[in-house]
Amino acid sequence: MADRTAADGAGVIFDVDGTLLDTNYLHVLAWSAAFGDNGFRIETADIHRAIGLPSDSLVERLVQEQRPDLMEAHSDHFDRLRERYGVHAVTGAGDLLRRCAASGWTVVLSTSADKDDLDWMLPLIGADDVIAGTTTSGDVPHGKPHPDAMVTAMDAHGLAAERTLAVGDSVWDMRSARRAGIDCVGLTAGGISGPELQDAGAAEVHDDPAALLGRFRLSLLGVRAPQTQR
Amino acid sequence: MADRTAADGAGVIFDVDGTLLDTNYLHVLAWSAAFGDNGFRIETADIHRAIGLPSDSLVERLVQEQRPDLMEAHSDHFDRLRERYGVHAVTGAGDLLRRCAASGWTVVLSTSADKDDLDWMLPLIGADDVIAGTTTSGDVPHGKPHPDAMVTAMDAHGLAAERTLAVGDSVWDMRSARRAGIDCVGLTAGGISGPELQDAGAAEVHDDPAALLGRFRLSLLGVRAPQTQR
Repeated sequence: MADRTAADGAGVIFDVDGTLLDTNYLHVLAWSAAFGDNGFRIETADIHRAIGLPSDSLVERLVQEQRPDLMEAHSDHFDRLRERYGVHAVTGAGDLLRRCAASGWTVVLSTSADKDDLDWMLPLIGADDVIAGTTTSGDVPHGKPHPDAMVTAMDAHGLAAERTLAVGDSVWDMRSARRAGIDCVGLTAGGISGPELQDAGAAEVHDDPAALLGRFRLSLLGVRAPQTQR
Repeated sequence: MADRTAADGAGVIFDVDGTLLDTNYLHVLAWSAAFGDNGFRIETADIHRAIGLPSDSLVERLVQEQRPDLMEAHSDHFDRLRERYGVHAVTGAGDLLRRCAASGWTVVLSTSADKDDLDWMLPLIGADDVIAGTTTSGDVPHGKPHPDAMVTAMDAHGLAAERTLAVGDSVWDMRSARRAGIDCVGLTAGGISGPELQDAGAAEVHDDPAALLGRFRLSLLGVRAPQTQR
């Protein structure tokens, strides 16, 4: 475990879906089905690019209406797909969180998902012992790409923007972080490409947590780490 | 219908999955399930980037083995997903083919799918009257990104490389076309981003068939069309 604590104000805020858990493609299909059941035909590539937004923002972006019934239909489809097809952590997710904690970072998760979802998410990540806390949709007045998603997580754990990094897989993660004054690292594990993440503000891009772990010392997470490991 | 015929040697070769039909995300999930059932955990974003390859090449790329059983498992999963969730044409697909034909192009489809798949694919596209022919996996010694996929289609319809264009959504489509000496147009409807398609050789990139149709006159398909429409 880390010797230093959050008193440093140094933390890494991780997105969950598509970053630590390989869920984006199931979410795309669940939304596609929810829209289709209700007479909307939205191209799956457009849904994919909206993943990472809070559900209400995603719906409004894609069908230009506020439709809580579509959010519920998505949840139902997603639960069925998750049961049928299973969900796994992205390779190296738990190890990356552990390495961050061992390097002195306060590790925080910030997700647009509901608090209840943590019940199945956290065991899959398998790093509860190093996660200082989690921020879910209900904790944040305005979800990503609003900076609230990051500011709330920083406030809750005494993190300073200039000593904090964000790691995510969507342009919404990158924009939320940049607007909160946080440098951010992009992962293409959610299916959004490197150039798209860089355009949205990513300081560096890696394939997945395992790839980032492989270059940890040279990455922002290593270079700016509160303590150097031997 | 077009006044001119294939005697011009002017044609457009269209990919099908992800380009004319919104199937890529279903294929990703079907492959993920096929791999998972057989003890392979492959990240969905990696599967997505391999879509567009022939099935045998996709399997070899992702699990470094020749495994026909995985190809069969994928087909089974895909058929079930297609039945459960449905498949639709990408917006504007049929209209784009019609516009091409009306502009004097010979319209050919070239897909890594099986010949049998055309039975459900063609009715969804709904433009049989303007499609001069189709090339499927069995017709081609080496599938995409090998140039055979394009050369076979050109040979079958008397097309000349310098008067032919390709339209696709994957880097494999772009590479196959470039290696066959054909200029190619990328569509992001399959979820592969513009910069990725440009890196692979796309001369221009549009969102989907509807967007390409909206800029038809200014696109390669319009500028190089054998006959100008009023």
